[in-house]
Amino acid sequence: MNDRPPTPLLDTVSTPEDLRRLKPADLRQLADELRAEMISAVSVTGGHLGAGLGVVELTVALHYVFDTPRDVLIWDVGHQAYPHKILTGRRDRIRTLRQGGGLSGFTKRSESEYDPFGAAHSSTSISAALGFAVANKLANKEGRAIAVIGDGAMSAGMAYEAMNNAKQAGNRLIVILNDNDMSIAPPVGALSAYLAKIVSSRPFLSMRGFAKRVAQKLPRPIHDFAKRSEEYARGMATGGTLFEELGFYYVGPVDGHNLDHLLPILENVRDGDHGPILIHVVTNKGKGYAPAEAAADKYHGVQKFDVVSGVQAKAPPGPPSYTGVFADALVAEAKRDDRICAITAAMPSGTGLDKFGKAFPERSFDVGIAEQHAVTFAAGLAAQGYRPFCAIYSTFLQRAYDQVVHDVAIQNLPVRFAIDRAGLVGADGSTHAGSFDITYLATLPNMVVMAAADEAELVHMVHTAAVHDSGPIALRYPRGNGVGVALPAAPERLAIGKGRIVREGKTVALLSLGTRLGEALRAADQLDALGLSTTVADLRFAKPLDEAMIQTLLTSHEVAVTIEEGAIGGLGAHVLTLASDLGLIDGGLKLRTMRLPDAFQEHDKPEKQYAEAGLDAESIVATVLAALHRNSKGLEESA
Amino acid sequence: MNDRPPTPLLDTVSTPEDLRRLKPADLRQLADELRAEMISAVSVTGGHLGAGLGVVELTVALHYVFDTPRDVLIWDVGHQAYPHKILTGRRDRIRTLRQGGGLSGFTKRSESEYDPFGAAHSSTSISAALGFAVANKLANKEGRAIAVIGDGAMSAGMAYEAMNNAKQAGNRLIVILNDNDMSIAPPVGALSAYLAKIVSSRPFLSMRGFAKRVAQKLPRPIHDFAKRSEEYARGMATGGTLFEELGFYYVGPVDGHNLDHLLPILENVRDGDHGPILIHVVTNKGKGYAPAEAAADKYHGVQKFDVVSGVQAKAPPGPPSYTGVFADALVAEAKRDDRICAITAAMPSGTGLDKFGKAFPERSFDVGIAEQHAVTFAAGLAAQGYRPFCAIYSTFLQRAYDQVVHDVAIQNLPVRFAIDRAGLVGADGSTHAGSFDITYLATLPNMVVMAAADEAELVHMVHTAAVHDSGPIALRYPRGNGVGVALPAAPERLAIGKGRIVREGKTVALLSLGTRLGEALRAADQLDALGLSTTVADLRFAKPLDEAMIQTLLTSHEVAVTIEEGAIGGLGAHVLTLASDLGLIDGGLKLRTMRLPDAFQEHDKPEKQYAEAGLDAESIVATVLAALHRNSKGLEESA
Repeated sequence: MNDRPPTPLLDTVSTPEDLRRLKPADLRQLADELRAEMISAVSVTGGHLGAGLGVVELTVALHYVFDTPRDVLIWDVGHQAYPHKILTGRRDRIRTLRQGGGLSGFTKRSESEYDPFGAAHSSTSISAALGFAVANKLANKEGRAIAVIGDGAMSAGMAYEAMNNAKQAGNRLIVILNDNDMSIAPPVGALSAYLAKIVSSRPFLSMRGFAKRVAQKLPRPIHDFAKRSEEYARGMATGGTLFEELGFYYVGPVDGHNLDHLLPILENVRDGDHGPILIHVVTNKGKGYAPAEAAADKYHGVQKFDVVSGVQAKAPPGPPSYTGVFADALVAEAKRDDRICAITAAMPSGTGLDKFGKAFPERSFDVGIAEQHAVTFAAGLAAQGYRPFCAIYSTFLQRAYDQVVHDVAIQNLPVRFAIDRAGLVGADGSTHAGSFDITYLATLPNMVVMAAADEAELVHMVHTAAVHDSGPIALRYPRGNGVGVALPAAPERLAIGKGRIVREGKTVALLSLGTRLGEALRAADQLDALGLSTTVADLRFAKPLDEAMIQTLLTSHEVAVTIEEGAIGGLGAHVLTLASDLGLIDGGLKLRTMRLPDAFQEHDKPEKQYAEAGLDAESIVATVLAALHRNSKGLEESA
Repeated sequence: MNDRPPTPLLDTVSTPEDLRRLKPADLRQLADELRAEMISAVSVTGGHLGAGLGVVELTVALHYVFDTPRDVLIWDVGHQAYPHKILTGRRDRIRTLRQGGGLSGFTKRSESEYDPFGAAHSSTSISAALGFAVANKLANKEGRAIAVIGDGAMSAGMAYEAMNNAKQAGNRLIVILNDNDMSIAPPVGALSAYLAKIVSSRPFLSMRGFAKRVAQKLPRPIHDFAKRSEEYARGMATGGTLFEELGFYYVGPVDGHNLDHLLPILENVRDGDHGPILIHVVTNKGKGYAPAEAAADKYHGVQKFDVVSGVQAKAPPGPPSYTGVFADALVAEAKRDDRICAITAAMPSGTGLDKFGKAFPERSFDVGIAEQHAVTFAAGLAAQGYRPFCAIYSTFLQRAYDQVVHDVAIQNLPVRFAIDRAGLVGADGSTHAGSFDITYLATLPNMVVMAAADEAELVHMVHTAAVHDSGPIALRYPRGNGVGVALPAAPERLAIGKGRIVREGKTVALLSLGTRLGEALRAADQLDALGLSTTVADLRFAKPLDEAMIQTLLTSHEVAVTIEEGAIGGLGAHVLTLASDLGLIDGGLKLRTMRLPDAFQEHDKPEKQYAEAGLDAESIVATVLAALHRNSKGLEESA
């Protein structure tokens, strides 16, 4: 049990208004207490630690200098916003972070007026801030829009699109580039190298240095910031120019942990008249907490931990994770086949591809936060005869939907999509749920869509995808650990569009896709006990469907139920469409589809989320009994 | 009738191998003949004219200098590739462009080995070229990858993501920036201004100028291109740096119509060792054809025309286009409500928003080819109380799918999606078909999805969307002209999730969504004539469904058929799911879903595409008769 740190000054601050009543000299202490409080909170909840630690001073300075919430403050991604939550009326709930019913691990509009625009996926903040800024301009309202965006997030095309349009916002747009030379993994690409060059080639900018430089160039009254800033920008011999070419005034680099530098520079920016401005702030991820600073991932995401030692709670021993099984299987394929390549969009560790990268650095590509590029780059590799695996979380593959359609599916190129985090994901909540991929992929001609029922199936599917050269193929699997089945010594090539019968019965047919198979089997036991002999099929493929098997199952049982970890329009819809196309429903067919509900579910433990979604064994049993008009004892209800 | 131009030299060239046998001095004549041939071809087919005219010399020079198809040449978008098609074995079919069974209006892998990667959506070429280049590197194969990309396409995030990753391609990647200061509309944003600054601030680069500059800096042997290039790049006082900061060597600007400049510079680039290079080529859209050069849109897309006068065939008089009706309706809404804003992604004329922009320049936003930014920018405007309409073609909205999910639907922000080009689109073919939006939108919680059955309905739906502040709402409508119904004097606010009965019958129920309503009514006439009394409903909403109306229709008719201009997973799937959820299928239900086929359909006239898709009146009748086991005379078939 960790003791709570003493926080006498922070105890007097529950909103930014309170904060703004403090003297500048008090802010250092406040920042220290805020950091201690955040460490203490995350030590009991787990969650994102390193990112928040890096922006403690920046959070304090921004709320101190700007008039939030009238000035809107948009944290890109939002996982660095825990200190912001503590300062904006949510300290009393900060130890509920990411717990069921508790605070979200990201910014969220429904939580606070200080969260004007929610986030979780990266690189949206400049576009959103531009929307606020332009709205204020149209309405002749006061109010700046401030986007705080990391250097990693800057590699996404969306951030560039927004910067290219920034000029119309005028003074109302301020972009803080929070450069910690680190997203979740070390950043990649030319932009990262460029930022590193700036930071290494000149000293941090202080207000004194800022004023001095300006004075050398053009002695003018202090209020004439526009001209000074212009001259300042023009006078920079190195760096900054990329942002200037995109229409920003560039200021920096600034030490993001030095309040004596941050505060006056932000005040000048606030009061100036200079058009869209980009302030390049350098921070250290994990700052101020030794175990985080020493860790390779800067404690990006942590389990509960001991504050003194930094030692995190270990996950209980259990079966390997799907991610790990996927990674090992892909490495094994790549040993046999030098055409196999792997592509990740800034998630080498989350996707398990760090293992692949170590084994096959030449065939491993981390493209940064750039899913669109990742997919079309993979399509190019495939067109030239390679066998690329794009490993992208279900929710992030949404970023590359057009590339999946236009560059892969229409051209029928054999890109393999390894879709991790399919289905509900637990503490990360609705923004990270992989709810839609079955629907948005299975509607596409040429696409093959598989879902693994367990980790052994995943191994087979990796192999099946590897050798499938006739078109695109996707395999989806969930976050978390497998079920503990033995892994196959040698993977099998699955027949495309063929399912398997896992258990044979006579009355009830459960048609499962994905890892709800375990719940389907539990439900079958319960149904059998009620005298309802139950077949369980693992369909394996949402597309193409195993039409013969499905037709047989539907016509030889009294009731059939599809079960999938996805929203409407996926497996159930395809099975119903097949049944309708074949005329199977004409004479009566008890067919039900169990799917994710038509709602964005809040964060909670995955098993609770699935119970809430009605996708556990109990709900399956209930669905079957209702379809058969039987009560919970399996007896026929009187009409 | 236009006479074909004499082309004695071009007649000797049917492949790039033939071209490479010519002397450099012959290429000017060849280019002239190629231009004349292209004008002649497009005069009889219609299609994209201005873009191709701008790259005639570039096309000749690239095929002359590079070893295509071993060196892969990827035309971004592909609508400028008609000259390329003529030179790569397709001249004999060039007058079938965009006609049913004829050549595609874009590059296409199945057409030619000289089309290594098809296109049609913009900004994919650098990512794809990088895939080819890296594949060659891995395989230790010769072969460059050359992407030709317009300045407008450079505003898309995808291009930036690719550039940020270009370094790994080394020498094998060459990007030709085809700067004509024009995409379909004049380009917007900071990048465009930046390119204009470069072009206006220095003379065109010739090989002599290139060598001279290099010599001044660093006299070295001619083969030592790497160093020269480096010094050259460093020596540039203005411009070029943005691309250098992204890891490219920048060369330019080069006059893209001067073969004496183009050829030696391309040869040097081909033979050099310099890492990824970007050659900034300046061209004129419509070059060499006076009527095109004089036109505001540079004859971007044209009807058949008279070559001498440039006068295009007029479309026969008819009802107004859906695009035009949308534009007028939105302008009318905006006159009444100053919160209405309109956003287009580089398609002001295609979406009709040019009208809006003239009426309300302050509330009109052309963000360039940047659909991702467009949607999240709109979400920011909505969060601040505005009523934004994002007008994006169905196929291009795929580019912003994650933004629709993450920034709009999850936050339940009232962004209005005006989805033009929904359904099949005719000559632009599969890459532009709007086949998936019903499916990928209706699966999302909070989303409302409408489809207009005719132009009067569209007016009502624009109004309904305008006043719908409780969450996101989409309205879809097709390419082409309305059906000629009178437009309402005052638009009505439609009840969300309520359909309408258009025609009442007793035996057959046709549940139509969108503009197949006309075919459904034609089918109803035919069915009535066969003694099958037919109801026709216009559902208006794919989500939420009119559950009460649908339940009544399904249970009070012998057979029901849904009809939609979309792929599997959309309306039909949702209706079937509803029928299953309610248990309506348990006792037998003749319900069929008519939808787009599970295939990417080739370009053709829209009515032919819909007949091929089985979505015309005849197919509807056939579907009904088959479900009822009746023959084409409406008589019961013997069992």
